[in-house]
Amino acid sequence: MERARLSLNQYTVKPWPLAHAVDACARRGIPSISVWRDKIAEVGLARAVSIVRDAGLRVSSVCRGGFFPSPSAHERAKRIDHTRRAVDEAAALGAPVLVLVCGPAEGQRLADARAQVIDGIASLAQYAASANVRLGIEPLHPMMIAERSVVASLREANDMVERIGSPAVAVVADAYHIFWDAHVEEELARAGDAIAGVHLSDWTTPRGDVTADRAMIGDGCIELSAIVAAAEAAGWRGDYEIEILSETAWRGDLDAWLDLAVARYEAIA
Amino acid sequence: MERARLSLNQYTVKPWPLAHAVDACARRGIPSISVWRDKIAEVGLARAVSIVRDAGLRVSSVCRGGFFPSPSAHERAKRIDHTRRAVDEAAALGAPVLVLVCGPAEGQRLADARAQVIDGIASLAQYAASANVRLGIEPLHPMMIAERSVVASLREANDMVERIGSPAVAVVADAYHIFWDAHVEEELARAGDAIAGVHLSDWTTPRGDVTADRAMIGDGCIELSAIVAAAEAAGWRGDYEIEILSETAWRGDLDAWLDLAVARYEAIA
Repeated sequence: MERARLSLNQYTVKPWPLAHAVDACARRGIPSISVWRDKIAEVGLARAVSIVRDAGLRVSSVCRGGFFPSPSAHERAKRIDHTRRAVDEAAALGAPVLVLVCGPAEGQRLADARAQVIDGIASLAQYAASANVRLGIEPLHPMMIAERSVVASLREANDMVERIGSPAVAVVADAYHIFWDAHVEEELARAGDAIAGVHLSDWTTPRGDVTADRAMIGDGCIELSAIVAAAEAAGWRGDYEIEILSETAWRGDLDAWLDLAVARYEAIA
Repeated sequence: MERARLSLNQYTVKPWPLAHAVDACARRGIPSISVWRDKIAEVGLARAVSIVRDAGLRVSSVCRGGFFPSPSAHERAKRIDHTRRAVDEAAALGAPVLVLVCGPAEGQRLADARAQVIDGIASLAQYAASANVRLGIEPLHPMMIAERSVVASLREANDMVERIGSPAVAVVADAYHIFWDAHVEEELARAGDAIAGVHLSDWTTPRGDVTADRAMIGDGCIELSAIVAAAEAAGWRGDYEIEILSETAWRGDLDAWLDLAVARYEAIA
């Protein structure tokens, strides 16, 4: 894939502050970056906006809102407010989408937790639409269901998008989370215009932390070219985010890691 | 659930030889057992049959055939032969189903590997029907796709059953592997008469070996009563296998572990 559509998801180089990550993109001709909220908080929103703008980068997404389910109505309302502030940050940065990690069930039935996810997103859809930011439901790998997301397949995310029925509500397709699905290409086609992001990394079965043991593009078994082709066929013309959460990489030479990721991205047919 | 429909999957007590496991069932009034092929091989098939018959146990299933995909046609043929012999063993033991773990892609594209799974199963369907044994496609958890099974959802297993179109080809629904799916109840209903087995254990996110880090029934987050209710609604009237693969349990007091599993099974509403 061409460099012009490449975005660096900032957690690929998590140890770096925003200014360092932005500079690393600019030096490599990476035209876009995905910014995480904790990294925004480190410098403040106004400064984050100017760091990105001064470097001439696009912002492909802001990570993340969500974690909607809770047995406590008060807690659910707090999380919706938290996600609303994340929409504000995405709007300020000019990001087209806020990535939603929808959250675990927190001891509730999965069906009840999923209903709370739908309620939470639906309650923010108008606000997001007004801010010109889409809410991107990211299904996470089913191994993360107990800690991270009750939304565990692209089919389920597509169902939610249809159910809510707002153009501001979309899906984020992360290859790591969805590649195993025999219906992944069919569900990408079904998503169509509702695709609001595509993330790339690779899968070797995690042996440590399930959230941060991802493989370098090309080192695992994901057929990334097929997933990219399916996204293109569905109409996706936005950025491809390299998002490789890896504790191993974070302890190593991140410049070399990023160089390799860019080369591997460009090698995707 | 009532003890009359309980089966002990032998790998719950993997360190025990067949005679010991059978005796443990008989002493507890567990009327059924699922037998693994390595345990059959330890004593020979004829002896295995007499051990089970003398104790008056049913055999709910034989584990396992499968591992169909390979880039080598010779290797694929060998695996089909291996699975054919497993059908013979299931027939000798009076087991209604041979559980199929379909195998990883072995470096091939997932779509090609899945086509080989379908070819392998289809080539054995008539043989299995003649032996009065069903071939039970067990979708495994998507985290196991690189090592164990390209069939990673009940939807996909149901698709394969429909595609092959033989009454001898069915699905095995293991709660551990499928509980995360927002469509699990719908897919169980879709399977209907094609359900050939239901396995119970529980999920706490594995932190060690992904194949043998399962939780005791009731210690995790799987809504087993909902899955049992969905299986019953789909028409399932066979045994429920307790199948808790746990390296931790295998190192401990297996009699106490089994007693607890039976109590927890009976507590499922």
